[in-house]
Amino acid sequence: MTPQLEPFHAITISTIAQRLMAEGRSVIRMEYGQPSTGAPSAALARARAVLDEEDKGYWESAELLARLARYMEETTGVAVSPQQIVLTCGASPALVIALSLRFSPGARVAIARPGYVAYRNTLRALSIEPVELPCGPEVGYQITAAALAALDPAPDGVIIASPANPTGTVIPPEEMAAIAEVCRTRGIRIVSDEIYQGITYGAPARSMLPYDREAIVVNSFSKYFSMPGWRLGWLVVPEDLIGQARARMGNLFLTPPSLSQHAGLAALDCGEELDGHVRTYARNRDLLLAALPSMGLARIAPPDGAFYVYADVGHLTQDSMAFCIRLLEETGVATAPGIDFDPVDGHRFVRFSFAVSTPLVEEAIARLVPWFQAQKVLAPA
Amino acid sequence: MTPQLEPFHAITISTIAQRLMAEGRSVIRMEYGQPSTGAPSAALARARAVLDEEDKGYWESAELLARLARYMEETTGVAVSPQQIVLTCGASPALVIALSLRFSPGARVAIARPGYVAYRNTLRALSIEPVELPCGPEVGYQITAAALAALDPAPDGVIIASPANPTGTVIPPEEMAAIAEVCRTRGIRIVSDEIYQGITYGAPARSMLPYDREAIVVNSFSKYFSMPGWRLGWLVVPEDLIGQARARMGNLFLTPPSLSQHAGLAALDCGEELDGHVRTYARNRDLLLAALPSMGLARIAPPDGAFYVYADVGHLTQDSMAFCIRLLEETGVATAPGIDFDPVDGHRFVRFSFAVSTPLVEEAIARLVPWFQAQKVLAPA
Repeated sequence: MTPQLEPFHAITISTIAQRLMAEGRSVIRMEYGQPSTGAPSAALARARAVLDEEDKGYWESAELLARLARYMEETTGVAVSPQQIVLTCGASPALVIALSLRFSPGARVAIARPGYVAYRNTLRALSIEPVELPCGPEVGYQITAAALAALDPAPDGVIIASPANPTGTVIPPEEMAAIAEVCRTRGIRIVSDEIYQGITYGAPARSMLPYDREAIVVNSFSKYFSMPGWRLGWLVVPEDLIGQARARMGNLFLTPPSLSQHAGLAALDCGEELDGHVRTYARNRDLLLAALPSMGLARIAPPDGAFYVYADVGHLTQDSMAFCIRLLEETGVATAPGIDFDPVDGHRFVRFSFAVSTPLVEEAIARLVPWFQAQKVLAPA
Repeated sequence: MTPQLEPFHAITISTIAQRLMAEGRSVIRMEYGQPSTGAPSAALARARAVLDEEDKGYWESAELLARLARYMEETTGVAVSPQQIVLTCGASPALVIALSLRFSPGARVAIARPGYVAYRNTLRALSIEPVELPCGPEVGYQITAAALAALDPAPDGVIIASPANPTGTVIPPEEMAAIAEVCRTRGIRIVSDEIYQGITYGAPARSMLPYDREAIVVNSFSKYFSMPGWRLGWLVVPEDLIGQARARMGNLFLTPPSLSQHAGLAALDCGEELDGHVRTYARNRDLLLAALPSMGLARIAPPDGAFYVYADVGHLTQDSMAFCIRLLEETGVATAPGIDFDPVDGHRFVRFSFAVSTPLVEEAIARLVPWFQAQKVLAPA
């Protein structure tokens, strides 16, 4: 039997949300991690112009490769050549290439639990063994150098995510350095998912690149650049992997969408507009954090980045899926159940995405506070 | 070491072509298998309209799923439900999903040699063993039921391609039925790449679906629908694989580009415009076939479909890569070397793609005929 993958449970929530909306209900969509803002206006303008020009067919934009190399250099301080950039159809296929480049079937790769569901499932689809490291609130739900040092035997690799999904937590620079050092010593290969970089509320999240030049970096236009539906991402690969990375892209995916490459190039110069989105997320975050105490949700990860609050609702439920469905049906607020991110403890967590507009966050809070206040706290088990 | 993949050698040709063009040379691009016609006008109009509407974000068009199910039913006569359709970012990732759904690392999957390079490489990337079946002109360069019956031990699977790349050959209906029967008897799982269906010059190519309801079918908007750069493809999977197919799509690729889904839906109603492209290919094919004798190229596969001529140039070279480079530099006509499709005999083959405009085919012939006539025939080895 081929490896069995788990579905995204948030999709079930989304399906119910769509049904409720079709029935005329007002639903606030906080179940998916996607900006509601749409692509930057210059990116849309570029796409419009290109639609009226020649059709590019299969195409890889040399200009975009060069611009992304410069972007990586500007944001990480590490010199990156255009050859080291591999364009992909989003971060998900970028992860497939990264994992397939570094690891063979049977290899063991450490991931944080809770963590993004696709890490576990993509590893499984490639017959690589996910080694789940339970990461609790005391370590910001993040993999630490100490945890990697203690793993026996050492894994072949590790996926680092800062800021992380579903928690939004950021790994501090000194811990990034310590992780890189442990990995160097123990021969652990790093894949760094940096898709939420650019969206932080305190110190910026650091790339793994300055700490480990051998790390493979995954990034995309779906979060900070607000272009999720355009399916454009990129990898930074070390020099010695360029040939094999490009061969994988060519064989497994061919090229990224042409129009998205044009629009993405324009988006890279839209920092002012995009930073405005981050300020909106910051406002949304403040509103939500201020409301959580009156909702009785005190045990949350500190959302230093991304646009998520991952909240412990264990005093109200031990079945996060049923809880999210009931919450949606009774309040019209869609959320993602923790079981998408943590097969062990996720039954008592819920993820709120605050990438919607500020008025919608305000409306969600107005519905959530009385609902949560009306819930009966479970008797201790 | 992770599996080593081969690059597309045609990309090297393409890079030289681009350099020559930058130097002001007139180059006719017959190295890639992509329509030069661009997306249908209604698809472009829909894309333009959507750019001015809301941004869809991560999105899967229920309307497109239903329309594709109807399209498959209309073209194959087999009832297909929308749930059996899985949208992908083109045929390449569709093949990754299909292979990963059916086969585990170590499995053995038969492919025709010559054949599309990504079959071999995608199998390798997934640690599945490609079993190359040498297919000569006597069998139209296609896998036959007899060849599959003779394979000992039986492979776990087979990739069928009709019309095929690089040869354009079509498997006749009775042979499709025979292949399905042998596969049923021997427990061989079929993945059918039908990306060139709709582009044929005699009897239409048949889908594998009527012959094997368990087959996984791969298709895309890149060839008949003339939308290669839009990166939109689809799978038809049997009922029992729907859950795992959707889980693979969600985890490995998330969603296909939103705009492409809108445009693709419109393209499905553009049969008249698209059949016009096929008539252009038919004219191009007639011109090229008529010119081949005066070029001394008699040994070709019968291009019953797709838009390729795969020609034996063994009397002129035993190094198709060097030959294609010299041909390009001396005539400005870019072609693909046979080594992309056949690691054993491809050194003496060249693939011409006639998906360019008719005037360009005429110009190419005007350059190719005198050049080929000037070549010295190799002394028999």
